[in-house]
Amino acid sequence: MDDTLAPTSDLNDVEARLALPLAEAMLTQRAVRRVQPDPVDDRIVLRCLELALEAPTASNGQSWEFVVVKDRAVKASLAAQYRRVWRLYGGLGRLVKTDEQTAKIRKSVHWQVKHFEEIPVLVVCCLRGGARVPFVPNPPFVASSHYGSVYPSVQNLLLAARSVGLGGALITMPLWSNTVARRILKLPLSVEPCCIVTLGWPKGHYGRKARKPIGTVVHLDRYGQQPWRDEAPG
Amino acid sequence: MDDTLAPTSDLNDVEARLALPLAEAMLTQRAVRRVQPDPVDDRIVLRCLELALEAPTASNGQSWEFVVVKDRAVKASLAAQYRRVWRLYGGLGRLVKTDEQTAKIRKSVHWQVKHFEEIPVLVVCCLRGGARVPFVPNPPFVASSHYGSVYPSVQNLLLAARSVGLGGALITMPLWSNTVARRILKLPLSVEPCCIVTLGWPKGHYGRKARKPIGTVVHLDRYGQQPWRDEAPG
Repeated sequence: MDDTLAPTSDLNDVEARLALPLAEAMLTQRAVRRVQPDPVDDRIVLRCLELALEAPTASNGQSWEFVVVKDRAVKASLAAQYRRVWRLYGGLGRLVKTDEQTAKIRKSVHWQVKHFEEIPVLVVCCLRGGARVPFVPNPPFVASSHYGSVYPSVQNLLLAARSVGLGGALITMPLWSNTVARRILKLPLSVEPCCIVTLGWPKGHYGRKARKPIGTVVHLDRYGQQPWRDEAPG
Repeated sequence: MDDTLAPTSDLNDVEARLALPLAEAMLTQRAVRRVQPDPVDDRIVLRCLELALEAPTASNGQSWEFVVVKDRAVKASLAAQYRRVWRLYGGLGRLVKTDEQTAKIRKSVHWQVKHFEEIPVLVVCCLRGGARVPFVPNPPFVASSHYGSVYPSVQNLLLAARSVGLGGALITMPLWSNTVARRILKLPLSVEPCCIVTLGWPKGHYGRKARKPIGTVVHLDRYGQQPWRDEAPG
């Protein structure tokens, strides 16, 4: 499968790549954290964001905001936050025995943490307003609807990036302190930073991922009733 | 644009439809709430779910579970919950003046509430474990990562449904009480129901949606810096 596409800034190229068959885009989507430091044309980022805006939101509120970070100083401030939490989290990770897959992910996150300022584009995906007051509990249904109004668009952004041939990865760790993240990005209190999509022309590759068999996570009518448990994977 | 596809249960047909160009799938995705009561072949639902499982999750945890509800009694119990909250929410909605678009959505939700038992398939998308203890506050970053591990897969499911020609819509209201939803679906306390995707062969249509211009929700480096504000839509 042709999963490495050369960097481009030709918009006709970009449109042709965005015609990738849907199933293929999904099957070959994966976190590509290792990217080249070369710039990505703004128009490509905007085109991917345009497709992100086609995703659904609760009550069609479209209460999203996207901060495209290219300024090295802003990236460095977010990198410092990422390093702070990674020192703890990655350190804990080293203490537990992990399988090969997890070790591979940790190594690639480690690369990302180290090279964060060199990643050409960070898209900070935010939600405006919303029902969530920090540290005041909400019923889960409210929180779910809230975040359910940004992550479908984040997934569109990642799928669009994959089709165009951009390396993309979804992270939240640099935002562990909302207060600091708000200060770095000059976000008003009414705007919550939810996650970051990193973008750049890949050093890594797209391609198939290991997944648990579908019959183990799909139930019929009631939890625990799993008629497709022994189904062969498609 | 050919946005109405005849119902099918031919898997070759389904695969051909899943090759829809990515951008077209996104551009023509919309909530299709009005669906026919005719059954949908299990294999199609499973194929769409298989693609849902290709989405990213935090630390590759794959902590999702999907309950496919076809049993009319289970649907009726969820419908009763939906009606309870819609009476309040829809009633409040009628008190405020709304634009045409919102009125249209409300009408179609009203149809869905009324005909909920007739919708052939409800997919209840859940998260296992997770950091969230009900009514105990979490830092927003934890809650965001949590729900960020199910909504990308929900969006894959909706995009796959759209490509196949199934009407799909994302709702959370029937789950307003997690306790009752858990009882209906026999979910253990460790599994949180997050949202429902309704599926059926459409009465409604897919097609383009109205969206705010991208330049109004995209910022550069810092919130409020909007160089693309006057950009013409693509």
